[in-house]
Amino acid sequence: MLTPNLTVSDEGHLLFGGADCVALAQQHGTPLYVMDETTVRENCRGFRSVLQEEYGGNGMICFASKALSCKELYRIVHSEGLGTDVVSGGELFTALAAGMPASDIVMHGNSKTDAELQMAVDSNVGRIVADNLPEMTRLNRIAADAGKTVRILLRIKPGIDAHTHSFIQTGQIDSKFGFALETGEALEAVKAAAACPNLELVGLHCHIGSQILETEPFAEAARVMLGLMNTVRQETGIVLTELNLGGGPGIRYVERDDPKPFGDIVRAMLEAIRKTCAALSYPEPFMLFEPGRSIVGAAGITLYTVMAKKQIPGIRTYVLIDGGMCDNPRYALYESEYEALIANRADAPRTETVTIGGKCCESGDLIGKDMLLQEAQAGDTLAVLATGAYNYSMSSNYNRNPRPEMVMVKNGAVRTVVRRETYEDICRCDL
Amino acid sequence: MLTPNLTVSDEGHLLFGGADCVALAQQHGTPLYVMDETTVRENCRGFRSVLQEEYGGNGMICFASKALSCKELYRIVHSEGLGTDVVSGGELFTALAAGMPASDIVMHGNSKTDAELQMAVDSNVGRIVADNLPEMTRLNRIAADAGKTVRILLRIKPGIDAHTHSFIQTGQIDSKFGFALETGEALEAVKAAAACPNLELVGLHCHIGSQILETEPFAEAARVMLGLMNTVRQETGIVLTELNLGGGPGIRYVERDDPKPFGDIVRAMLEAIRKTCAALSYPEPFMLFEPGRSIVGAAGITLYTVMAKKQIPGIRTYVLIDGGMCDNPRYALYESEYEALIANRADAPRTETVTIGGKCCESGDLIGKDMLLQEAQAGDTLAVLATGAYNYSMSSNYNRNPRPEMVMVKNGAVRTVVRRETYEDICRCDL
Repeated sequence: MLTPNLTVSDEGHLLFGGADCVALAQQHGTPLYVMDETTVRENCRGFRSVLQEEYGGNGMICFASKALSCKELYRIVHSEGLGTDVVSGGELFTALAAGMPASDIVMHGNSKTDAELQMAVDSNVGRIVADNLPEMTRLNRIAADAGKTVRILLRIKPGIDAHTHSFIQTGQIDSKFGFALETGEALEAVKAAAACPNLELVGLHCHIGSQILETEPFAEAARVMLGLMNTVRQETGIVLTELNLGGGPGIRYVERDDPKPFGDIVRAMLEAIRKTCAALSYPEPFMLFEPGRSIVGAAGITLYTVMAKKQIPGIRTYVLIDGGMCDNPRYALYESEYEALIANRADAPRTETVTIGGKCCESGDLIGKDMLLQEAQAGDTLAVLATGAYNYSMSSNYNRNPRPEMVMVKNGAVRTVVRRETYEDICRCDL
Repeated sequence: MLTPNLTVSDEGHLLFGGADCVALAQQHGTPLYVMDETTVRENCRGFRSVLQEEYGGNGMICFASKALSCKELYRIVHSEGLGTDVVSGGELFTALAAGMPASDIVMHGNSKTDAELQMAVDSNVGRIVADNLPEMTRLNRIAADAGKTVRILLRIKPGIDAHTHSFIQTGQIDSKFGFALETGEALEAVKAAAACPNLELVGLHCHIGSQILETEPFAEAARVMLGLMNTVRQETGIVLTELNLGGGPGIRYVERDDPKPFGDIVRAMLEAIRKTCAALSYPEPFMLFEPGRSIVGAAGITLYTVMAKKQIPGIRTYVLIDGGMCDNPRYALYESEYEALIANRADAPRTETVTIGGKCCESGDLIGKDMLLQEAQAGDTLAVLATGAYNYSMSSNYNRNPRPEMVMVKNGAVRTVVRRETYEDICRCDL
């Protein structure tokens, strides 16, 4: 099994977080997102404990909303002592509505609108990460109009190549995000921020990419960013006190994936910070880290019903399901790979190689190609694993398919945390 | 200009369907979908008139909902004498709610659920296109339970290579859709359908792909499908009376695109049908055709506000906007190309090569790379052209961004047809 929260019952049913997936599908319908609260909480604690042990707790772990934003998730991560990062007014609205304290919220985004900046200033979010100079000018004006001083960090492109999929590499210089280090743009941005009377520049931020399986890129990012902080001190006298290294730790999507445990990643990062600070005689900064996928990815699965199987002799076998790119667009977008199981025969060996096709009217609507699966038949419950991140958050109503319900399971107990959309929901904006 | 519904005012503002795009952005906010009703209606009439002139009107043009489903669009195409095809319960619900007669609706889908089939039977949709044998069995049972006989067509994979993007090729044998012709599966399906007492098999359907720029693949599809209908007559004595050739005509997205006018495509198809029927002594079938993109694609544009411009010396210039893959995922999905203009300086020459980046927290969130544009600056209104198809219908709430408003313009008059989502809308299913 891919993760320890997956087991098999005596009946051969897949259990996730102690809940019988076949019963879940029958009682709640499919497609169904299932999140395991225990795993989410364990991951939150895992991040916090490393920060505590290795760095005296001098920092904050912020859950990255883009991976999965809904009220109950914010309540859970907040109760575990995490903050959150948001990248839009909608994520900020949801986090605040769920009771996340504004002081624990970091506001990101490369294209924040005036309305979003206003909302962030009005709600007193703890930190805003400034992405570009026009934004900084707008934010300074909005803060001045509100009679406030706003704590900001600057988003830096540190030029790290994180050896990952080019679409989700974000630390290199050819990126829409932030200020480039190499070109001197970053240093100029520090000076510009320091000259804004209603902005309090406290630190720097970077994000080197997503689904990174190694520790070294994170350690290198820490060293590069501290080098820049030291340059800022030398050139301007400003001692920045916060370092936000973004997110990016990868998870195990398929059996051959071998990600470094996120604890190792955070440890390597913190060790690099301590050593670099010592070498530079730089005061150890308040550390922020923004994991998303590594907290919720393996904490989620999606249940579907198999509608039909099509065997095309010598070519391919399609297993057709009642969901697809509308609830999980990651194969269509990135050819992302997943493991899948027939939940009602989870103990049977996976002997067939199949392509899982969705219900959308598009040939590219696949969950995956050439996946190993038990002999599937119409009516089976299919479980696609490790769908907790970037599935619900990226879901659409393509073909006007309603978005699935999401249930949270905890040691076998089940509760609905996002209700299923109705057809009326889908039409509610149509005049 | 890409299409005749785009002009420039004396002030240098882009006019779309007679409406000033700068004023639209100011009055309705951005991002904003703008549809030109006149173009939609002209395209509907264009399809119908060719069917009338070349085939005595013996058929029906059905708008393909997947391209753009909202109530007002159904009202418009219905008032032009078109039917619609739907591929889900949600599209069916919307079409019926908008007043589209059930008899003018064709129900598609490779993974129709029991609930969707029940809904189609209960509402008496004119035709259901059966995709596979288990579905046919389920539909026959549902129809029997309702005491009805349901008119069906069978979806066939005719094995046509339409020389288009592999993701949207659907007529080849390696497809999740339908019954294969080459393997004899199609003929077996005809026999199986004929044996279902509550199904009335009236014809065949195929869809050879999307954004096809040539006439010949359509003519070839017509010949191949009539060949199969003739084989069916020879082998079973059944004379099928309807032929549905799906959709697929391409549009001009960028200036170098040179699609055949859809009128030529329909003419070529109908000519192939008449000639083949004559050669086979086969009665000319009732023709269905299901255009989507070619009706609404060029009838829509999207307006954005430029938030910032980032010049990375020697590498790339990014123009950052207040929308992105959440309202138009086509670059992220297919690297689809678009033309764009600064709407407030539409008369200025496009002298800069830029990459348009969206507001989502993802490097792949681009509208396009290396696009020619006027010198952009923060605050400009950006118009992305030919976004009427597969933009709103594929939109998501990624990063919890609200979906844009859609306005319909008609000779300069403007009305809202889909209201902008609010943050409350986005959270409405969160418990």
